Amino acid sequence: MSAAAPIEFYFDFSSPYGYLASTQIDALAERHGRTVAWRPFLLGAVFQHTGSQPLLSIPMKNDYAMIDMPRMARLYGVPIRMPSTFPFMAVPACRAFYWLVDQDREDTAKAFARAIFKAAFVDDRPVASPTNVVEIAGEVGVDGAALVAALKDPAMKTRLREVVEAAIASNVFGSPYIVVDGEPFWGADHLPLVEKWIETGGW
Amino acid sequence: MSAAAPIEFYFDFSSPYGYLASTQIDALAERHGRTVAWRPFLLGAVFQHTGSQPLLSIPMKNDYAMIDMPRMARLYGVPIRMPSTFPFMAVPACRAFYWLVDQDREDTAKAFARAIFKAAFVDDRPVASPTNVVEIAGEVGVDGAALVAALKDPAMKTRLREVVEAAIASNVFGSPYIVVDGEPFWGADHLPLVEKWIETGGW
Repeated sequence: MSAAAPIEFYFDFSSPYGYLASTQIDALAERHGRTVAWRPFLLGAVFQHTGSQPLLSIPMKNDYAMIDMPRMARLYGVPIRMPSTFPFMAVPACRAFYWLVDQDREDTAKAFARAIFKAAFVDDRPVASPTNVVEIAGEVGVDGAALVAALKDPAMKTRLREVVEAAIASNVFGSPYIVVDGEPFWGADHLPLVEKWIETGGW
Repeated sequence: MSAAAPIEFYFDFSSPYGYLASTQIDALAERHGRTVAWRPFLLGAVFQHTGSQPLLSIPMKNDYAMIDMPRMARLYGVPIRMPSTFPFMAVPACRAFYWLVDQDREDTAKAFARAIFKAAFVDDRPVASPTNVVEIAGEVGVDGAALVAALKDPAMKTRLREVVEAAIASNVFGSPYIVVDGEPFWGADHLPLVEKWIETGGW
């Protein structure tokens, strides 16, 4: 099983349900000897394709989400607190993530992503600016000067654009969006089905 | 437990996920000594409030739904087949449903609703016109002449409008939308959480 392809975990850093799924997905995969490739992308770019609006900007759905998100957090036994500034810009965090991945520092990239989620959805710290991102990356051992340079590098801008285009081409229209052996699952509430799919090989 | 208020099951007759939930909700409630009040409404009227679009009209989401809906049907062990004409008008079916409810024929109303869902999502029969609705109602023992009259009755038009307005006032923005002891759950994929909520009394 451990030779199987990684489970693809697409998310937007400013997605509360992406945060919630991020607290569960690695343990879920590990229970079945699988690994997870984290794939942050920019949901706003996808929404331009689909004509969708952010969940929390839709009347009624927003009221529901304010019940459903903390309920799911309590179920998982994890904290959640909506950021004072929401939604927030996730471009610098995404660029930093893929810059780490491109150096084969996947574990650091994941630790950084978790730190961004915790800062945003637990500690209500700002995470949108390059300065914020460099500070948080520093807390997981990333060299600040090198990251400052990377965040300005046109190559990382191109890299992220390609990631987003690939996500759209792969039909990734929401966050979280999880792909297991080619099978797509949308939404944190689909995690039990993701696990069942891994366990059973599909039905 | 049997004295507890019924679980409220809101749905649109033209909602595939409403159909899928309808195949599970009564058995789920019965496992815990609870009953279910079926509450068909008109999602289109709600979408005018929220600015949402039908799921299947959104690019990418539509492709996903065509994977997710049959996958959920296979999980439940029930058939599903997308209607040739979709979405379809559910006003006559809704009026017929509440006309039966208002005669204290709840069981017949549910049998009628199940017959409409089966006609639409299993047998690919038309269910939109008053003629279709009278025919299907006849198959569950409803007198045709009385129903023909009821479907033209302005009182039933008003009744349905009030149902829809009450649904909007109760924040019912999607289908299915299930309320357990005041706690709302949106989506067929939330059924396991609905059951957990009933079992535990909430968390």
